[in-house]
Amino acid sequence: MARLATPTIALLTDFGTAGWYVACLKAVILRICPQAHVVDISHEIPPQDIPVGALTLAAAASWFPAKTVFVGVVDPGVGTSRRLLAAQADAYRFVGPDNGLLGLVLARAKRLSLVHLTNPRYWLPETSQTFQGRDIMAPVAAHLARGCPLRRLGVPVNRYQSLRLPPLQREGKSIRGCILYTDSFGNLITNLPVSLVADHAPVQVRYRRMPVRVVSSYAEGRDGELVALCGSSGYLELAIRNGSAAWRYQARRDEPVSVSRS
Amino acid sequence: MARLATPTIALLTDFGTAGWYVACLKAVILRICPQAHVVDISHEIPPQDIPVGALTLAAAASWFPAKTVFVGVVDPGVGTSRRLLAAQADAYRFVGPDNGLLGLVLARAKRLSLVHLTNPRYWLPETSQTFQGRDIMAPVAAHLARGCPLRRLGVPVNRYQSLRLPPLQREGKSIRGCILYTDSFGNLITNLPVSLVADHAPVQVRYRRMPVRVVSSYAEGRDGELVALCGSSGYLELAIRNGSAAWRYQARRDEPVSVSRS
Amino acid sequence: MARLATPTIALLTDFGTAGWYVACLKAVILRICPQAHVVDISHEIPPQDIPVGALTLAAAASWFPAKTVFVGVVDPGVGTSRRLLAAQADAYRFVGPDNGLLGLVLARAKRLSLVHLTNPRYWLPETSQTFQGRDIMAPVAAHLARGCPLRRLGVPVNRYQSLRLPPLQREGKSIRGCILYTDSFGNLITNLPVSLVADHAPVQVRYRRMPVRVVSSYAEGRDGELVALCGSSGYLELAIRNGSAAWRYQARRDEPVSVSRS
Repeated sequence: MARLATPTIALLTDFGTAGWYVACLKAVILRICPQAHVVDISHEIPPQDIPVGALTLAAAASWFPAKTVFVGVVDPGVGTSRRLLAAQADAYRFVGPDNGLLGLVLARAKRLSLVHLTNPRYWLPETSQTFQGRDIMAPVAAHLARGCPLRRLGVPVNRYQSLRLPPLQREGKSIRGCILYTDSFGNLITNLPVSLVADHAPVQVRYRRMPVRVVSSYAEGRDGELVALCGSSGYLELAIRNGSAAWRYQARRDEPVSVSRS
Repeated sequence: MARLATPTIALLTDFGTAGWYVACLKAVILRICPQAHVVDISHEIPPQDIPVGALTLAAAASWFPAKTVFVGVVDPGVGTSRRLLAAQADAYRFVGPDNGLLGLVLARAKRLSLVHLTNPRYWLPETSQTFQGRDIMAPVAAHLARGCPLRRLGVPVNRYQSLRLPPLQREGKSIRGCILYTDSFGNLITNLPVSLVADHAPVQVRYRRMPVRVVSSYAEGRDGELVALCGSSGYLELAIRNGSAAWRYQARRDEPVSVSRS
Repeated sequence: MARLATPTIALLTDFGTAGWYVACLKAVILRICPQAHVVDISHEIPPQDIPVGALTLAAAASWFPAKTVFVGVVDPGVGTSRRLLAAQADAYRFVGPDNGLLGLVLARAKRLSLVHLTNPRYWLPETSQTFQGRDIMAPVAAHLARGCPLRRLGVPVNRYQSLRLPPLQREGKSIRGCILYTDSFGNLITNLPVSLVADHAPVQVRYRRMPVRVVSSYAEGRDGELVALCGSSGYLELAIRNGSAAWRYQARRDEPVSVSRS
């Protein structure tokens, strides 16, 4: 693999793409690290929706090259005393507010170093109370991408705000999870790991008391049939072939889905 | 022109931009080919809409630099027996499912080589049944961009799934086409080539039995007037100045539009 | 700071991102200047909305690196006699139609050179009447990014179409401005400079005759409370914590907002 002459910086925000906020992040990054390759993960996290932001970041991050710097800005507490963090988590670096947004990616790290961003030398000269993504997080990420060591950015800390996803519950022979996320196709992604169905032992999946047939590709579903399958992020998902399960069932986040040995 | 030290990889999908699917494609590409310049054509192809995907790809592709690698993922058959293809078509490379999505760009190629992607050496080590864009197509595209010869990716094939656009019909002195696509301004793009009106011989354009005045720029239209003009993609289009013809007429794909010598 | 081996070209249009128009701009740029780093400011300017385009460009531009080339295409007069311009404005270059879109960024320049784009040597070989962003503006921007001097692009001109934002009005002890823009969070950005409230002298902000409490961060607002604060672009804005002021008040552009010394 070629040397990373172009360090990757990946962005995740709830800014939307109509206005100038995302461009400000990129502009600030390019001033400091012109050779950076800036990649958008998503800017359409629902405003202030930390759990969806955390899930999206965690689902995307592990596919990126080693040394990628991730910047997450879903930050309803901007300008308050909530801390800003930078982390080295295994081969990746993360920058974001300490509000749970980084909770999932940091929790799965085997090796983790954390700093509280306190060194203004790596920020813009003037910082606002309303856009610290631009004023602090983007410049810090760009400095990391240029090779600045984590420890220079502030003081080491040991704790970060975790994010607790709804836990799986065992009920007799069945395991109950729930819907975590609806994707752009209307597929319903659950918190049930695919290992629960992947060993080919017969299982029964249920949603709203309906049995849901387990298939191995979207196209195996019949017209309008709700099916369950091993989703690409490692979780069981419910889907309708060439249709939207979310729309058809007006599905809601946190609704239960269960898997039982039959 | 400078040497393409930064090979271009252009992406077209129906993934939307809210979730992490597009980021996964880019992340996988950058792991394999960090110097790639990844350009989004569109990620807002309507879900599973192969004809709109094919049109959009064909409208964009010929403007790109030689050697660009295009990845098209509108793939309702993911995980079934439909084949994945890579093609060298004149100066461009294309990667996508063999379902018609590549039908227009391959049909116009003067020189064409096709392979069925069968060599897992150029895929991710593990592949899913639900996201072969990430697991097979993105890595293959990145290897092509790095210089991997097409023939190594699989076995040569001679046929691909074509895509038949609605044909033009001659009716006496008139030629009848139809609406193919509505753009973001609400302009109605037809399948009638601009050569039918571009030679300045007087013609009459009709839509829903109304005569439509032919103009040469959007601004020539009067308030609310439907006009016809030579669109930038080489086809006649219907438009309303500073308005949306699609909305005003609740226009539908496939509706007839005719041109006749007067 | 590293040498700009990758010149930045920043794009702002009203094209939307579903179709192929943005991709055409990028493709043409990459043909001429493959090493360019192309950054999207926004492609979701409301169709033909020159004031919103001008505001968005002005809000984003000053954060970019020196030498950035900006291309603005909100161009209802495409194909008519309206001129296309390129400008050197302090450290930046701008390319766009002479219709007010560049009005704000050019007005604040201390040093300004302008040319009317008349030299077809720097355009695509064939140009349409309907997509001069692709045929003229994108290639001109790419040539600028490669180092082509401004003066070669056409004939010098002295005037450009200005854009007049609604002026502030003094009424006794109060200054009346208005809402200019609604951002993606539903925050209402006014034309009242933050200097009016930033010196900590007590002031009263009013919107629809309601007094609006001035706070220093979004999170200081109480549930559902409309607050005023110093926005990140240098203007007073009205906001609701974790909510949308625009939606709650069905706010309209140009509605008055006033600040008075109490």
